[in-house]
Amino acid sequence: MYHHIKKLMYTVHVNQPDPRFGNMLLEQFGGANGELAAAMQYSIQGINCEDTVCKDLLMDIGTEELSHLEIIGTLARMHLKPMKKSADAAEHDPLVAIAGGGGVTLCNSMGAAWTADYLKITGELDVDLRSNIAAEARAKIVYERLINFCDDSGTKDALQFLMTREITHLRAFMQALEMVSKNPLSIGLIPPTPRIVDQWYNDSTGEGDNGEIDADGPWKSKKGITVVESPALQEFQVLKATPKGSETTVVSTEKTQK
Amino acid sequence: MYHHIKKLMYTVHVNQPDPRFGNMLLEQFGGANGELAAAMQYSIQGINCEDTVCKDLLMDIGTEELSHLEIIGTLARMHLKPMKKSADAAEHDPLVAIAGGGGVTLCNSMGAAWTADYLKITGELDVDLRSNIAAEARAKIVYERLINFCDDSGTKDALQFLMTREITHLRAFMQALEMVSKNPLSIGLIPPTPRIVDQWYNDSTGEGDNGEIDADGPWKSKKGITVVESPALQEFQVLKATPKGSETTVVSTEKTQK
Amino acid sequence: MYHHIKKLMYTVHVNQPDPRFGNMLLEQFGGANGELAAAMQYSIQGINCEDTVCKDLLMDIGTEELSHLEIIGTLARMHLKPMKKSADAAEHDPLVAIAGGGGVTLCNSMGAAWTADYLKITGELDVDLRSNIAAEARAKIVYERLINFCDDSGTKDALQFLMTREITHLRAFMQALEMVSKNPLSIGLIPPTPRIVDQWYNDSTGEGDNGEIDADGPWKSKKGITVVESPALQEFQVLKATPKGSETTVVSTEKTQK
Amino acid sequence: MYHHIKKLMYTVHVNQPDPRFGNMLLEQFGGANGELAAAMQYSIQGINCEDTVCKDLLMDIGTEELSHLEIIGTLARMHLKPMKKSADAAEHDPLVAIAGGGGVTLCNSMGAAWTADYLKITGELDVDLRSNIAAEARAKIVYERLINFCDDSGTKDALQFLMTREITHLRAFMQALEMVSKNPLSIGLIPPTPRIVDQWYNDSTGEGDNGEIDADGPWKSKKGITVVESPALQEFQVLKATPKGSETTVVSTEKTQK
Amino acid sequence: MYHHIKKLMYTVHVNQPDPRFGNMLLEQFGGANGELAAAMQYSIQGINCEDTVCKDLLMDIGTEELSHLEIIGTLARMHLKPMKKSADAAEHDPLVAIAGGGGVTLCNSMGAAWTADYLKITGELDVDLRSNIAAEARAKIVYERLINFCDDSGTKDALQFLMTREITHLRAFMQALEMVSKNPLSIGLIPPTPRIVDQWYNDSTGEGDNGEIDADGPWKSKKGITVVESPALQEFQVLKATPKGSETTVVSTEKTQK
Amino acid sequence: MYHHIKKLMYTVHVNQPDPRFGNMLLEQFGGANGELAAAMQYSIQGINCEDTVCKDLLMDIGTEELSHLEIIGTLARMHLKPMKKSADAAEHDPLVAIAGGGGVTLCNSMGAAWTADYLKITGELDVDLRSNIAAEARAKIVYERLINFCDDSGTKDALQFLMTREITHLRAFMQALEMVSKNPLSIGLIPPTPRIVDQWYNDSTGEGDNGEIDADGPWKSKKGITVVESPALQEFQVLKATPKGSETTVVSTEKTQK
Repeated sequence: MYHHIKKLMYTVHVNQPDPRFGNMLLEQFGGANGELAAAMQYSIQGINCEDTVCKDLLMDIGTEELSHLEIIGTLARMHLKPMKKSADAAEHDPLVAIAGGGGVTLCNSMGAAWTADYLKITGELDVDLRSNIAAEARAKIVYERLINFCDDSGTKDALQFLMTREITHLRAFMQALEMVSKNPLSIGLIPPTPRIVDQWYNDSTGEGDNGEIDADGPWKSKKGITVVESPALQEFQVLKATPKGSETTVVSTEKTQK
Repeated sequence: MYHHIKKLMYTVHVNQPDPRFGNMLLEQFGGANGELAAAMQYSIQGINCEDTVCKDLLMDIGTEELSHLEIIGTLARMHLKPMKKSADAAEHDPLVAIAGGGGVTLCNSMGAAWTADYLKITGELDVDLRSNIAAEARAKIVYERLINFCDDSGTKDALQFLMTREITHLRAFMQALEMVSKNPLSIGLIPPTPRIVDQWYNDSTGEGDNGEIDADGPWKSKKGITVVESPALQEFQVLKATPKGSETTVVSTEKTQK
Repeated sequence: MYHHIKKLMYTVHVNQPDPRFGNMLLEQFGGANGELAAAMQYSIQGINCEDTVCKDLLMDIGTEELSHLEIIGTLARMHLKPMKKSADAAEHDPLVAIAGGGGVTLCNSMGAAWTADYLKITGELDVDLRSNIAAEARAKIVYERLINFCDDSGTKDALQFLMTREITHLRAFMQALEMVSKNPLSIGLIPPTPRIVDQWYNDSTGEGDNGEIDADGPWKSKKGITVVESPALQEFQVLKATPKGSETTVVSTEKTQK
Repeated sequence: MYHHIKKLMYTVHVNQPDPRFGNMLLEQFGGANGELAAAMQYSIQGINCEDTVCKDLLMDIGTEELSHLEIIGTLARMHLKPMKKSADAAEHDPLVAIAGGGGVTLCNSMGAAWTADYLKITGELDVDLRSNIAAEARAKIVYERLINFCDDSGTKDALQFLMTREITHLRAFMQALEMVSKNPLSIGLIPPTPRIVDQWYNDSTGEGDNGEIDADGPWKSKKGITVVESPALQEFQVLKATPKGSETTVVSTEKTQK
Repeated sequence: MYHHIKKLMYTVHVNQPDPRFGNMLLEQFGGANGELAAAMQYSIQGINCEDTVCKDLLMDIGTEELSHLEIIGTLARMHLKPMKKSADAAEHDPLVAIAGGGGVTLCNSMGAAWTADYLKITGELDVDLRSNIAAEARAKIVYERLINFCDDSGTKDALQFLMTREITHLRAFMQALEMVSKNPLSIGLIPPTPRIVDQWYNDSTGEGDNGEIDADGPWKSKKGITVVESPALQEFQVLKATPKGSETTVVSTEKTQK
Repeated sequence: MYHHIKKLMYTVHVNQPDPRFGNMLLEQFGGANGELAAAMQYSIQGINCEDTVCKDLLMDIGTEELSHLEIIGTLARMHLKPMKKSADAAEHDPLVAIAGGGGVTLCNSMGAAWTADYLKITGELDVDLRSNIAAEARAKIVYERLINFCDDSGTKDALQFLMTREITHLRAFMQALEMVSKNPLSIGLIPPTPRIVDQWYNDSTGEGDNGEIDADGPWKSKKGITVVESPALQEFQVLKATPKGSETTVVSTEKTQK
């Protein structure tokens, strides 16, 4: 059950409304990495969650994101209001001006309606936590970019507050993942097939015109890794399905790291 | 530049086509966590990437996912083919039967068209790698569920191969993240506001009918954390915007962990 | 600012989970007339609203709808849970089974992701209230249909509670509209063109095979109405743009009601 | 069956094509509250409708909206045509310029493709009429805003004609609703639960920074209403499901209006 | 300007309503290749068209497709009506049953809302005609599949009528294309680069497990064609941008057909 | 199976990045007629295809389009990069600037996410080839328009290369259609109804204000065609369903061409 208090979680002051920037702010209101996406992703994961400790975490943060949605919506509304009257302002977002009368709607900065396709909800707790860590990292960087494009100090303060909270959440989700998953490489119950999991398929090779190279990261060079060079070009013949029970054997030009 | 070799990366054998299962398989062909989503997310991040080592990683995996898309498409095609003729089969997915003639299309198991809204691409390398780790974890668990619903041994073998590779990729993205980001809590360049980042807002409280509790995870109890109890109910008055330069002070019923 | 209490607004009891019905319930969770649509439509209108009394109304109801979203989500989760294990159950919604692990997501009963395209938000208070009256009427009838398809008494009780509240909201929005709009036919500030507003264009004529007729409702027969018979067939010549300032004259086969 | 006459329902004159304004006009061509949405909503309700008088009404208006779609499309086409040649013009809508060659497409002013998600069709006549009343009110206000942003007198005349007709339709739908529904609070057949329908949940309380207050509208103060103060904070315990047959009792701090 | 006559263009008789088949029929009502898509594609191309003869063609067919939309909608409505009452029927399309009360909506057979993304409108007459030829061919084959899945003779008759008309339209669009485009390979005004247009890139090679081969169609073997074998593997070095004015030279393992 | 070579199929040089033009380029990256749409349409048709010669064709071109996607993405990335830093640049596409950090995403020039709704895949080879011919014609004209709006000679060269290849593909698909379909009017197996296929319904009549006329194309005047004048206005009575087996007779004001 929810209760709403009319005071915002962070009081916003806008000195000079800027419709162009109000339009950019919509990215965090109705955009793919915005506050509604965060609120819905965590709260619905919370409804599905059967671990009481993490369920509480998901509901705590999910609820806080609703309060963030209200802050960013109020802020965007202040910046977008001049669109109702000014044709110059209206050009930055005719949808807000003509269909919305200068009010906010659940769209991103290019007028795309918010969609639940943005959400990542799998019903598997440790997997969902990984999706949440990534979501918080994305939200953080988007707030940083908004701050960099912002001229109004009051708006900047609010964005700094919101950006800070994403780091708090990022840390919490990382702690929760550590708590529920002992081995970060183990997902679900079915183990990967032993030899195949240690093969690296070098599927992109050669050199490009702008310095692109066939590099040598740890994923290729760590001990135990078998590099399969350009598997497509070898027609991958040795990986054909083998009789059930027997082992898959890889015989081609691959090289196992030692 | 791409080249295509007609042999599949993993040869598929289907003993008994099962349109109901073919329909489920579409989740990994045109679904939110499927192979096209993976191929596009990594390849496009690769186009944007300016770190040559990680760019190679992104193109290696992005290309491998295209080969996976081909495997899962071929497999689904084999299972869905009877839909063209049988009305009973057609009921499982009238879109495939009527509009597709028993062939695959870029839809998920409920007929929703694939959309780039599924993708997470930010143009910030370490953030993108977190999104990729989460994406691989999701793909792994979806393959596991498909295996659990699958009766055909040839199909199961192919799914096991594909599932295994997701773990290979998960590991590689984790290694890459370690390589490019020294501090997993540091995203972008603007630091979070010191005191606010250490506050925990206990926004969801009380007890529920099915054992829901106000739990005490490490995010609340770790040293240095200040718990703000039910901030909405205190009307959050102390967090009002303060004059620029001064510090935000929190004076309410909060308790700092020691 | 929001606060969440773990107890549901209406405690739900499910005697016998029914995945088929759980799938139908999603219509009110992530569907076009469901609880998220209601919560978002009213809360965002509330952010835009500059009338303090109606702003309070919008936030009261918007918040209650969030609590309803939680009820319907919890209920659907209980009914959908068997999908994780049973292939028969999974057929009712492979998306929930395979991608969601038997948990809820923001989709409707056919797996379409929730979209803000469902919302009607114009930034004009009296217009928004009309959209809300219609939205509550739609939600009421959808709950009634769900009750009619429901076999489980605990589920029925919860749906009856939710359905009842829609009528409470419907009445409140009607009272608010009466309060802010003295003339229900007056929208905005620009008046309609006098004679044209009283014309009825009889654009659909003749008789159909199933009893369709060219009927005579009050919109045609009320005093003052001028019926223009089959305007397309008269080529509408008399309605051509006339010199600015002069009056549009209609001379054709029309008949003014007396 | 439809017939098309090449003369427009309202002859349009454009003195000075203005691509910026042509782009705004698309809101009424392919936008959420535009003419296609109106034409489709009413015509499809008409196909479903089993009341012959209202079926005729729905087909009359649905057909007129098709003629409006043609007017607004022709008008937008005239304003957008320069986009084909001028890069400056093209910036207002690169989609129209590059993909459409300066012609109209079924998109809104921000390039979002028209979707049937905009429609409200329930198959329940009185509910559909409420949705139509709201739709006409929205269309009216959008036309008013377009007129306010318009500099071209010929375009303004056409918009005034179209805006006027929405009021004609609004009135007709209101008359039809009165005709089919004796009690505006009665939707469907299942009655609401008596005491619960008269409760007001005061879910949003306190004061905000911009004059937001916990106001006292008729929905709270009318005789017979029971106000439940901040139900979430009282944990709503008294509304728990009660044994079938018994009455729900509310005992907390609520106050019934007299 | 449009006029509607209540008689259908083809009278429909349904002996035995079949909700399962009604659901399939939606593919031609609100589906990607359905009648609304056809009506909108041609009518909007007609609005954009500046060739008076083809404009008439586009409006003739666009209007006929509206009459087809009405037929298929009426037919689907008859088959779907039992969904309102029967839970067994409702399972075939819970969206129609729960949200639509057994009435039609603009969705396809899997409940996906119709979208203007289905349309192909470029503002270039000869290109649009090619899109229309393809659209008619798709509509024809979809009707054929519906007929093959249909048990009801009255329904079959109507589908046969509709299918027949698509062939009429296909022929007309082909005649129109012949009329406006003398050279079917010439699109627009900028000519293709001479030598490059005659190269064939053999980008997919080898043999597959199910008889896939590197075949030899006329596109490779016709006189004047230069086959570039596996260009990616040769790293396409010779196609690098050359100094403006000079000619691109291809020197690798290619072979020009004689 | 795919392999990726780091060298682009056409080396791109950008002298002066132009974010406004970079935004337009996205039309061919993530737009409706862009390279991903082409790559996916052909490759998935290829997976479904059972004719080995055409399957090879579809995979050859599908793979080449992937290489084109890479070229256009690299080109757009170069033009969009300044968006990360410059507010003026960012206004052309705030989504790319704020959410994408100046990198490309799978959106069109108006920020709409790519969707598989753009694709035309029917599982019927000759129908798919018609869709592909139309798709290539659309891609050609879009490239031509981009070239016309482009100031940078290096970018122009790349676009000319890509545009040229579309003509190569157009020709190949036409050759393939000729190969598989002897009669261009014959689609599928069920023949059209003889007399009805030769009727022309003159559904759009009269004269418009801008020279629109009821024209006389070959589709009306060719020998054997029966023109049915304004069928709706004659209420189409003669086309009513007739007893099975009997012939449909048309007796009205129609005129058969001789």
